[in-house]
Parts: sequence; C-alpha cells; structure tokens
Amino acid sequence: MKSLDQRDPEPGAMRRALELAAAIGAPGPAIYPNPRVGCVLLGPDGSMIAEGYHRGPGTPHAEVDALAKAGDAARGATAVVTLEPCNHTGRTGPCSQALIEAGVVRVVYAQSDPNPVAAGGAATLKQSGIEVEQGLYAAESRDLNRVWTQAAELQRPYVTWKFATTLDGRSAAADGTSRWVSSRAARLDTHELRALSDTMLVGTNTVAVDDPALTVRDAEDRPVGVQPLRVVMGERDLPEDRRIFDAQAPSLHLRTRDPHEALAALWERERRHVFLEGGPTLAAAFLEAGLVDEIVVYVAPFLLGAGRSAVADLGISTISDAFRPRVRSVDVLAPAAVGDEPNVRLILEPQKGEQ
Amino acid sequence: MKSLDQRDPEPGAMRRALELAAAIGAPGPAIYPNPRVGCVLLGPDGSMIAEGYHRGPGTPHAEVDALAKAGDAARGATAVVTLEPCNHTGRTGPCSQALIEAGVVRVVYAQSDPNPVAAGGAATLKQSGIEVEQGLYAAESRDLNRVWTQAAELQRPYVTWKFATTLDGRSAAADGTSRWVSSRAARLDTHELRALSDTMLVGTNTVAVDDPALTVRDAEDRPVGVQPLRVVMGERDLPEDRRIFDAQAPSLHLRTRDPHEALAALWERERRHVFLEGGPTLAAAFLEAGLVDEIVVYVAPFLLGAGRSAVADLGISTISDAFRPRVRSVDVLAPAAVGDEPNVRLILEPQKGEQ
Repeated sequence: MKSLDQRDPEPGAMRRALELAAAIGAPGPAIYPNPRVGCVLLGPDGSMIAEGYHRGPGTPHAEVDALAKAGDAARGATAVVTLEPCNHTGRTGPCSQALIEAGVVRVVYAQSDPNPVAAGGAATLKQSGIEVEQGLYAAESRDLNRVWTQAAELQRPYVTWKFATTLDGRSAAADGTSRWVSSRAARLDTHELRALSDTMLVGTNTVAVDDPALTVRDAEDRPVGVQPLRVVMGERDLPEDRRIFDAQAPSLHLRTRDPHEALAALWERERRHVFLEGGPTLAAAFLEAGLVDEIVVYVAPFLLGAGRSAVADLGISTISDAFRPRVRSVDVLAPAAVGDEPNVRLILEPQKGEQ
Repeated sequence: MKSLDQRDPEPGAMRRALELAAAIGAPGPAIYPNPRVGCVLLGPDGSMIAEGYHRGPGTPHAEVDALAKAGDAARGATAVVTLEPCNHTGRTGPCSQALIEAGVVRVVYAQSDPNPVAAGGAATLKQSGIEVEQGLYAAESRDLNRVWTQAAELQRPYVTWKFATTLDGRSAAADGTSRWVSSRAARLDTHELRALSDTMLVGTNTVAVDDPALTVRDAEDRPVGVQPLRVVMGERDLPEDRRIFDAQAPSLHLRTRDPHEALAALWERERRHVFLEGGPTLAAAFLEAGLVDEIVVYVAPFLLGAGRSAVADLGISTISDAFRPRVRSVDVLAPAAVGDEPNVRLILEPQKGEQ
C-alpha cells in the first residue's frame, strides 16, 4: 500500500482511488451499465485503512468493497471515492446507507452522480451528520467514465458512428465488393473500439446485404471477451440464417426505423454505448436527429472513382451548411500486413448546436 | 571554407558540393528547366581550391562557376561535382570542354546525367585522358533533383495532381460553393507546393466555372517570386477576362484534351514539373493515361453528404481493381486560423504497373 502525505492525505487517496477504479480495465460490456469507481478509506490520522473498487454489475460497489475489508476500523474514517455514493437500491443496496452504518464521519468524492435516478447520495450523507466534500479530481473522474457520464446526462446511450472510406468517399466498389477498404491495422483497431461499447447497431439492409458477424474478434479472428449486444433496427423481416443471429453473442431485432425510439428501447435495456456501423442511410438518420456523439472515420489512401458512398445525402446544399465536427484526434495507423498502406483514423465530435 | 579530411578529401568535397547545390533554394520556376548542381575543386594535395554552384537558366554551370574562381589553380585539380558534366551547348558551352581546357586531371561526379540529350560528358572527359569516377553520393544527388531527374528519364514533365476533399469525397456543395473546403493551413501549404513547380495546369471547365488565379501567393494573398506558367487545356474558347489571363503571371491555352499531347507541348517549352489542380475529369484522364507521378490530397474533416465529387469516375468496377498508390507521407496540418480544424495531407505515388 502506497504511503500518503500525512499533512494532506486526501489528494493522494483520490489519485489511488482513480487508479483502483481503472484497474478493472477499459469500459465495455463486462462493466456497463455501471461506471468504474474506486474508494480509499482513511483513518482519523490520515493512514490508509482499506481500499476497494467496483468489478461490474452484481458485484459490490467500491465503497462497500472497501468497507467490507475495513470492518470495524471504518468507524471514524474518511471515505475518499471517485463518484458520489449512490442513494438507490439496485442490484445492491445504497452506498450512502452503508457508509452511515459503518460509522464513516467524512466523505470526499470527485464527481457528482450525473444520473438523476441515483442522485441524492451526498444529501443523505449530510442529513446523517457526515461531512461531505465534492470536486477533488472531478475532471479526472469524469474522464474515467467519459461515455458513461455523457449517457447518464443524456438519458440515452452514447452513440459512436464508425465508417471507413476511401480518399474519394467510397465504402464499396460499383459491384458492391468492399473487402477490404480498410487496412488490417484499421480493422484490428475497429475491434478494439467495438470492445469498448456494449451495443453494436446496424440497419436491416446491412444485415441483408453484407451479413456482418458484428462480434469483437482478435487478430486470429476469434471472438474475445464479453460480447456487446448485436442490434439490427428496421421494420423489414430478416432471414434467420444471418450471422448476427448466430450463437456467438446475443442479438436483438428492433422493429423501428426511428433513431429516438431505438435509443429509448436500448436505454430501457440498460445499454450505455452504441457502436453504429452502418449503413449510410441509418447513420444519416442518427446524424440528422442529433443523436451522434462521436464519429470514428478510417480513411484508406486509395481511389475508386465510383461505387457506394460512405456517407448518405445529409440534405446539405451549400458549403456554409457543411457538417463540421470538432477533431478530437487524428492518427496514422501504420500497416500491420504486407501490401497494406497507412490508414488515417480521425475521431470527431459533433459541435453543440450543429445538426 | 570548411576543412576536409586530407587522407580522403573527396567525400567531404561531395558533401560540400551537395550543400552548395541546395543553397540556391528549393526547385521551382526560377531554376527549371535546369537541375541544382554544386562543384568543388580540389588541389593535388587534397586542399580546396574553389567552389561553385548553378544559379539557374542563363547563368554559368557549377563547374564553370568554380573554374572561373580557380583560374590557373585549376590545372592539375580534381573536380568534385554532384551531376555528370554536360556535353552539349545549350545556353552555355559544354562543361566537359571547360574542364578539359582548364587542365583538370580527375573528375568525381555523383549522379549520371539522366537526360539523353546531354549525356556523354563522362565519355568525352575520358577520351581526353581525364580520370573519371562516378557514384559517390549518387542517391543524395538524385534526391536533390528528384522531380527534374524523373522528368528527364520520362522525357516529359513530372506531374503532381493535387486535390482537396471532405471526408466523404466532396470538393464542393450541391450548389457548387466550395470556399473553403480546405483549412487555411492547407491552402497556405498548397501555395508552397505550387511554388515548387514551373507549370500550373487546369481544364477549360475549371477556368470557366471557378475562375482561379493559379498564382503562387503568400499569407497576405500577394503573388510572390517567379510565377509558374499558368496553362489551361481543352478545345473550348474562354472569355479573355478570366483571371488566368491577367498580368500577374504568364499563361497559355493548349487547345487539346489529350494529356499526352499537352505534356509533349509543355516538354517542348522546357517545362519540368506540372502541378495539376483539376477538375476531376481532367485528372481522371491523366490518371487513366498513366501520366500522374504524384498525388497530393488534402482531407478536410467535415461532411457534405452530397455535391461535386472530388474524384471522377475512374472506370473501376470492383474492389480488387481499386487504384492503390503507395503512401509517401501523411501529415496533420494544425489549424492556422480561428475556427479551422486540423486537415490531413497525404502524398501518394502511383505504383508501377498500375493504371
């Protein structure tokens, strides 16, 4: 256990709590719909009594994990926790109650709970006479659960739209062939990003025409880890033999073409992060509805001159109305296979007020 | 004058000659159709006697420049020169003859003359009993005059095709507006690249519709330096008030739609580097004729969904026939103006056997 600055032990304890929260690994289907949270208990003399972190749905929250380890030593302690203690009974009891019962006298938390359903933990603690302080490393905690936080604030799943394009805006050749537009490095990168979401989403046309598996696979093309839910949306019936319906991962057919309806249904199912992979018509519907939070684009440095457009008509007629997102990052993906050229990956964020 | 290694002075002298050659500045309209060349004269004891370099058309060649400075001291000297001495009488007399007459006893040169018209300098020197050695830093000299060398080998101007595109392959919105697709940083970069060529080339349609000035301009939009020749090709008549015909730079209307014919006519006019800026139909004609040597693409990170395609139909119907150039470089151009986002610049080279 690391030593803390005895004169001001709380900042060090919060940094440790953030480390603990991240130790579970990247966000993804194994952790959603929950956030990553870490907790450190400090004794009255500033020494560290116990630490805990959340390990995903159905397991104890970080505070409860730490309290269990501390036992009676928690009496008189300060709890340093990355997220406001919850106040509601879900799969587990409310953390605010557990902290009160354990005799904790002070709670320092980084980020306020952005979820209206769970909010109120701090108020409950204060009503019980516990000293409460908020804001230490709040930005770092928010970053730790960036997507989860935005989903909670929006009260719908966060939507990442991914597409791959040639330099001239094509996703497939004139005859429909598209293997491969992206380099191997870009395809492997896509699987890493899929693994960060809990839901894959495509339209019925993509399933009918391209028949994607929509699983997260490793470099040897084997499915890995807990798989995101595979969702196809649209009113059209689909043949049962499509790969999206195989046994490799759960799947769901949402019989709607309305992005708002689809996201509401997925939020109801506790989905937090939707990875939208096409096709262009579906993506355009999400874009026009203002329901895209992040765009990941892979640009392959070649030309087709004709073929399927990577992006559908967005109803933009003049250059000043162009859809101009903010660039969060631009990266060159070095070739990972013989014959491949570098691909460029851009991560974009629609600006507020746009669309 | 820098000191040389007395035991083996020639490599040091060649490095100095390469420096001298580059000192004139980047290639461009002030230097073409000539290459950049440097020369160092070494005495029998390996000491440096004189140095010279070429300053562009109508001025002495590097060897003659150095010989003039050396005077009688050139007798018995070794000439270290970056390019094979020329053997023909152009604007100036043949360098091989000047070296013989000056009494030089040994000539060390880096790169063989790639131009069949001028070749034979080394043979003439040998016939006069001069010791000749070739190959020292040959690759470096070739790099120094990369475009000039390839043009000489191809016996036609080297062609750079530049285009700007949105992430979805558009060069203008549906109503034709295109100011600005590229960021300010990308536009400034384009002017820097234009300045490296001696010829700007567009089709009659671009002149009729977009009316570009096609000059090299600085950050304040003022024309700078010696301007490339502005060429419009196509059979259509053009109004005299188009900006390409103004007094800011010379211009030329080539009445042909055939890329081979146009390049032959430009080669005849001693043009070495054509900067092809559009439109897409003209570029496609050059691409299909195998007459594009380099592609510069600026990718702006926004979407239009519809509008003018940056690249015309290339007659490609299936993905395996995609035009896949080699990527020479990928660079992110940071914003140079408020409100701009980063643009990506790719420099591509068509692979041999493609097209």
